[in-house]
Amino acid sequence: MKPTAVDYSLYLVTDRGLARGRPLLQIVAAAVRGGVSCVQLREKTCATREFIEQALAIKNFLHSRHIPLIINDRVDVALAVGADGVHLGQTDMPLAMARKIVGDSLLIGISAECLDDALAAAKDGADYLGVSPIYDTPTKADTAPALGLAGLQKIRKAVNLPLVGIGGLNAQNAADVIRHGADGVAVVSAIVAADDPQAAAARLRQAIEAARDKTP
Amino acid sequence: MKPTAVDYSLYLVTDRGLARGRPLLQIVAAAVRGGVSCVQLREKTCATREFIEQALAIKNFLHSRHIPLIINDRVDVALAVGADGVHLGQTDMPLAMARKIVGDSLLIGISAECLDDALAAAKDGADYLGVSPIYDTPTKADTAPALGLAGLQKIRKAVNLPLVGIGGLNAQNAADVIRHGADGVAVVSAIVAADDPQAAAARLRQAIEAARDKTP
Repeated sequence: MKPTAVDYSLYLVTDRGLARGRPLLQIVAAAVRGGVSCVQLREKTCATREFIEQALAIKNFLHSRHIPLIINDRVDVALAVGADGVHLGQTDMPLAMARKIVGDSLLIGISAECLDDALAAAKDGADYLGVSPIYDTPTKADTAPALGLAGLQKIRKAVNLPLVGIGGLNAQNAADVIRHGADGVAVVSAIVAADDPQAAAARLRQAIEAARDKTP
Repeated sequence: MKPTAVDYSLYLVTDRGLARGRPLLQIVAAAVRGGVSCVQLREKTCATREFIEQALAIKNFLHSRHIPLIINDRVDVALAVGADGVHLGQTDMPLAMARKIVGDSLLIGISAECLDDALAAAKDGADYLGVSPIYDTPTKADTAPALGLAGLQKIRKAVNLPLVGIGGLNAQNAADVIRHGADGVAVVSAIVAADDPQAAAARLRQAIEAARDKTP
């Protein structure tokens, strides 16, 4: 059964291509020690069996610390490893098909690249939205035009789901994203490529908590 | 529910990289007119949504002709499109995990690259085996050493499942594979890359049926 209360505050999305040769589990462990509250495992090139083995090792670490694991794109991998959820982009499996397969066993997060995406995902029963991209980012080459803080705010007013901002976010601009209605900040390179992923996560988490204290 | 009686005689595995720019559905349709009795859709690079759309179009064509559709690697895509089965290689999802997800809703075929693979798959409840590769083939770069007809025969004696030979097969050597115990012949380039996929399929089917007539 999918978890009922998820802390999306600081949401790490992995990318082994940015890990500078360090094992993902090592980066995930450091990031969690620094304050990451949710982890999405994204693997776009490895074989399914390797993806599953990687996911099981990371799940084993995360679950003993009550941190949810979300699998990018692959509904089958999410089911196979007993993850907490699956995250689907606009070129992944359509939400309604995925829900029919997984029922209430998994959270389903959807990447919303515009207001229409967000409204459709809310209508079809998404559990949370990745609002993407807030800013342009070199991490993903295939993204839609940047939404900016105004675009995030428009989606915040229109849907009642947890929103996680992603795209070009770091310790300097994370607070803005929280102040403009996001429930969490998702990052890839700001943690995965950092010299010290634990310290990077700690700075991000601090910025997020400070912004919340100041948000009415 | 998975189909109970499948005709594996001539089993087409798609590869859009070999299709010389022709749409896969066009090749599949010609191949079925020529005598293909089972189709496996293999997509290793496209996005999940594109894979699903392609699979739905091909399923629509095949099911009106009572030809089963099997999806390579992706258990989630197979479930989403209502395919007849999923085919799993030795670097795809382990059979036991896949069976737990799909139950009896899908056939599960396993690539057996040696006798031990075949015995393990039979024990874990595979519905059929792809015995691979019979001969060396340029279609897949990552294959195990060729089993030859002797390797096929050894697996035939050890397991009671339907066996489909694959790897370097064509109208010239298909008969040997049937005579050495295979229930069917799987091909990729011999049909997908052929100038006339319908004629290529017809020649293969004829060779297979002729070999059966002569097999005691």
